[in-house]
Amino acid sequence: MAPQYAPSLRSRLAPLLLFLQTAFIIIYAFFVEVDSNVKVDGETFSNFYAEFQDVNVIVILGFGFLCTFLVRYGFSGSGFNLLVAVMATQWAIILNGIESWYYRGKIRVNLRSLVVAEMCTASVLISMGTMLGKTNPVHLIIIALLEVSGFIVNEWVLQTLLKVRPLNSIMLLHIFGAFFGLMLTWILYRKGSEQRFEKEKFDSKTGLFSMLGSVFLWMFWPTFNSVLVDDRTPGRKLGAVCSTYLALAVSAVTAAAIALLSHPKGKLNLIHMQSCILAGGVAVGVSMSAVHQPWEAMTIGFSAAIISTIGFQYLKIHMLLAFQCHDTCATLSTHGLPGLLGWLSHLLLQIRDSDDHTMAIRFAVFHICTLLITITISLSTGFVTGLLLKWNFWRPPQSKKCFDDQAFWEFPHNAVRK
Amino acid sequence: MAPQYAPSLRSRLAPLLLFLQTAFIIIYAFFVEVDSNVKVDGETFSNFYAEFQDVNVIVILGFGFLCTFLVRYGFSGSGFNLLVAVMATQWAIILNGIESWYYRGKIRVNLRSLVVAEMCTASVLISMGTMLGKTNPVHLIIIALLEVSGFIVNEWVLQTLLKVRPLNSIMLLHIFGAFFGLMLTWILYRKGSEQRFEKEKFDSKTGLFSMLGSVFLWMFWPTFNSVLVDDRTPGRKLGAVCSTYLALAVSAVTAAAIALLSHPKGKLNLIHMQSCILAGGVAVGVSMSAVHQPWEAMTIGFSAAIISTIGFQYLKIHMLLAFQCHDTCATLSTHGLPGLLGWLSHLLLQIRDSDDHTMAIRFAVFHICTLLITITISLSTGFVTGLLLKWNFWRPPQSKKCFDDQAFWEFPHNAVRK
Amino acid sequence: MAPQYAPSLRSRLAPLLLFLQTAFIIIYAFFVEVDSNVKVDGETFSNFYAEFQDVNVIVILGFGFLCTFLVRYGFSGSGFNLLVAVMATQWAIILNGIESWYYRGKIRVNLRSLVVAEMCTASVLISMGTMLGKTNPVHLIIIALLEVSGFIVNEWVLQTLLKVRPLNSIMLLHIFGAFFGLMLTWILYRKGSEQRFEKEKFDSKTGLFSMLGSVFLWMFWPTFNSVLVDDRTPGRKLGAVCSTYLALAVSAVTAAAIALLSHPKGKLNLIHMQSCILAGGVAVGVSMSAVHQPWEAMTIGFSAAIISTIGFQYLKIHMLLAFQCHDTCATLSTHGLPGLLGWLSHLLLQIRDSDDHTMAIRFAVFHICTLLITITISLSTGFVTGLLLKWNFWRPPQSKKCFDDQAFWEFPHNAVRK
Repeated sequence: MAPQYAPSLRSRLAPLLLFLQTAFIIIYAFFVEVDSNVKVDGETFSNFYAEFQDVNVIVILGFGFLCTFLVRYGFSGSGFNLLVAVMATQWAIILNGIESWYYRGKIRVNLRSLVVAEMCTASVLISMGTMLGKTNPVHLIIIALLEVSGFIVNEWVLQTLLKVRPLNSIMLLHIFGAFFGLMLTWILYRKGSEQRFEKEKFDSKTGLFSMLGSVFLWMFWPTFNSVLVDDRTPGRKLGAVCSTYLALAVSAVTAAAIALLSHPKGKLNLIHMQSCILAGGVAVGVSMSAVHQPWEAMTIGFSAAIISTIGFQYLKIHMLLAFQCHDTCATLSTHGLPGLLGWLSHLLLQIRDSDDHTMAIRFAVFHICTLLITITISLSTGFVTGLLLKWNFWRPPQSKKCFDDQAFWEFPHNAVRK
Repeated sequence: MAPQYAPSLRSRLAPLLLFLQTAFIIIYAFFVEVDSNVKVDGETFSNFYAEFQDVNVIVILGFGFLCTFLVRYGFSGSGFNLLVAVMATQWAIILNGIESWYYRGKIRVNLRSLVVAEMCTASVLISMGTMLGKTNPVHLIIIALLEVSGFIVNEWVLQTLLKVRPLNSIMLLHIFGAFFGLMLTWILYRKGSEQRFEKEKFDSKTGLFSMLGSVFLWMFWPTFNSVLVDDRTPGRKLGAVCSTYLALAVSAVTAAAIALLSHPKGKLNLIHMQSCILAGGVAVGVSMSAVHQPWEAMTIGFSAAIISTIGFQYLKIHMLLAFQCHDTCATLSTHGLPGLLGWLSHLLLQIRDSDDHTMAIRFAVFHICTLLITITISLSTGFVTGLLLKWNFWRPPQSKKCFDDQAFWEFPHNAVRK
Repeated sequence: MAPQYAPSLRSRLAPLLLFLQTAFIIIYAFFVEVDSNVKVDGETFSNFYAEFQDVNVIVILGFGFLCTFLVRYGFSGSGFNLLVAVMATQWAIILNGIESWYYRGKIRVNLRSLVVAEMCTASVLISMGTMLGKTNPVHLIIIALLEVSGFIVNEWVLQTLLKVRPLNSIMLLHIFGAFFGLMLTWILYRKGSEQRFEKEKFDSKTGLFSMLGSVFLWMFWPTFNSVLVDDRTPGRKLGAVCSTYLALAVSAVTAAAIALLSHPKGKLNLIHMQSCILAGGVAVGVSMSAVHQPWEAMTIGFSAAIISTIGFQYLKIHMLLAFQCHDTCATLSTHGLPGLLGWLSHLLLQIRDSDDHTMAIRFAVFHICTLLITITISLSTGFVTGLLLKWNFWRPPQSKKCFDDQAFWEFPHNAVRK
């Protein structure tokens, strides 16, 4: 089976991984040390460790198993997710620490820097959703390195030009990841994608594996949104957790209702529901610093679920037919639109809370610039990455080998669903 | 396939969900705010957050995946569990806060109120085990709202009449949930249930999904029992954790041994074992405030596992044939009997610890009243809910569509186990 | 199906479990109490509880689901793991507490003693990997009791003779478990094992269940390595977490690369990868107290993954053909070799950090003795256990019933993958 791609993996992937990993170890040997200062921003190790592990579960387990829904692509979905996540995290630790290296000679690793690196990784994993099943792992590693770089450049630009706080710019990861992924899948469009690929479907067992990942994302999303909130102002972190929890609850209910209404036969679709129950958490995450009351979070969750569900139902196919964007996991509807809605809610809430007219206009301009810069950097990094990946040197899988584990993974005695 | 039920979902479920969710948002807008006081009962955010997440995992993942064992009902088992859990939790937050609203004008949400709401939700999820596979989601939402109301009324009655502390009355959720569910399944009895339904079975993969949920319940049950224990008395919480852990360990071993002895062919049954390994945790939870030594917890766990296992083996079929109670998940044996045993252990331990005769009798009367009130309210709420659900307006699924995801969920290309 | 083994389970397993469990309860009644002192080694309940739960997840869920990869052995893999884990933990609590009982009259149970007991249990679960699919549960219970005893004797000998701190001797569990298991599988060798057993394979769904266990081990391994590190010296625990995280990240990448290079067709093998991504965590755990810089941990992770992956590919079959050791889960490569590498790294790092020559030599002698004692006790306990298990009284499963759940578990209507 597929002997033509096996050599591709051995001759491309293995050297790439070994080279990068050795390079990382050498860089770490010269520039990285463990932070001996145990109190960072008022958090001790014990207080922060459980939250760190929740984020770890989201990145490794949540996103990994969310990608197992394709009937023959579960090994790749979860296995490549792990590979990409650990490469991206190591790279993000280095890039995030450049400033600290410049001023203090060493990059310091502590739980907070691991969490920030994993959130940069999350933007990569979001983008990968658009390409799920259509790449080989070499592509994924290249995407990971370039996207993390782009994301951190964006954070740096926003901080330098507009004084956007890291907490706010990191939360733009949903918007950044979604637009990066869309640009990528547009450039790497395959002829024939209009017809659904033969293996692009789920079954009753893969749906449950994917439900598992989705449920972990849903449960631990309050941590994802609140982990970087500064706990020195009492109650800020609690507010973030409660807001996210309520927004997630509302968006789970609303997503189910709207999915039913918009489905031609009036049935529920598990994958559809899995994508859209998270919309509220995404939107509230982006608008976090302006949300103060539970009902605000709930209204945002309600709207996000409606937009996300309708987007999944109508926009996904429209993007494919009209714009030639084949977005496997409907990342635009799951992360892009709710992210934009969160951005808009942030703007509206901030304007409402403004004391006078001038301040409101000033904030609006500032906020619109933040979005435009993010989308520009996201699309242009995606464009460059896409062009690089078009190079046949990386040996993309043939269309008939897409969405199939057998191109990359060994099955003993070919014993799969015999 | 089953086109007659699809419209039922669209015309009943979607409006119901949207109406309730909008109503909830409006209620929250007027009455709910986030608690700005970070220290509640001596617990800070950081200390409590990991425990909150454990309870969240129990309610969303544990109960959800425990219900995936039916061979064709995994999507409904896990998906509807999520829907019901979030509706019930939102409703429980409101009802639990009425007193606070009355005195202070606002319902305050904090981690503790979320945890209490999720424990009320747990009683609903326990009841749903009796009806698994035989309802549509509209029924489940109605059950959720009415049972949460009944449970909170029960808590209020116990507190007002008998001064039962919330910690103790909440732990009666196992007894409340089991009897509510039994009454429900008795009223909604379907002719022909004596013969096992065609799809009422598990297979080697769904058994493992269910094992996953079961293992999460088992692992995090010490949190479930200890989360509301007041930590201001040093060591109380540690005692609750150790007692529950040891009781669970003993009941896992005992359940396996008794299941072997009671099985006609001397084999183990995975679903049987999954239900009964939790019995010790349930019983110790109910008797928590009187258990002080590890061996007491272990003896309770030992007895609970024996009762639960034998109940599963003989009582389930007896309830069906003699009383026309078709209890899909054997909730009576899993939660009802161990709950009653826990109640009894509490009584006996308390009598042993009493200083004089009068006090012991007084306590016994008080304790028996608590149980009688709980069972009465549970059965009567279940009775009312059952009568409401008999109304054909809700379009119950036909018997031949029971235990089948295809009545509610879309499968792409009908690609299930082709 | 297999009626000849059902009676074996009923007449052997059930009495054994009930007898042991009753004995444990009686021992606990006389000798064990809950520790009322809430602060142990400077850790309060709240700080430590999340870490305790992580270890619990590793032992119950992680090891349990790692063993579900065999296509027809998932129920046994996860179910017997739970049984063995709870028996071993109860037994380890007793044995670990003998000293405290001798001096203070009572064994005190607190979170730390539960964690230590679960780590002794982990050494049993590692050994069981060598025997997976070839034993009945009676064997497993006997192995558990004897191995825990041997492991704790080893810890006591090391502490008495060489003043090895418990933290360091417990981390030798990987080496102890692997050699114990190898000796066991060598003694219990079955004729005909050279040909792969018919059911000794995985499929696309069981591979994912196993991936789930593996990912949980990977995510929570930093807790496993750091949980017993004393937090009174600031930053020690943080260092352990960061080192383990980075070593795991490096070993995931390296394992994938080396697996590709060493595979005859240049494909990835999911089970192979699952075993080897943990190698870095194992090696760093053993050498923890000498690792101070991230790059040291990463280099250890890099080497461990190479050794582990090559061991899996070539050594497993060599051990079978040349030494008649049929090691189902390749425990030697997964835990044995990385453990030895960790031991070696510890030695080298300590020598490098030594001030003078004499001290380095003294340390080396001391360190080599530690290893020799551990391996001797491990192999001799394994030898005794193996001889005991050869006794036909325990009714070992026939070779054709190996790797098959149907020998022990009931399937309703035989509905497995019909």
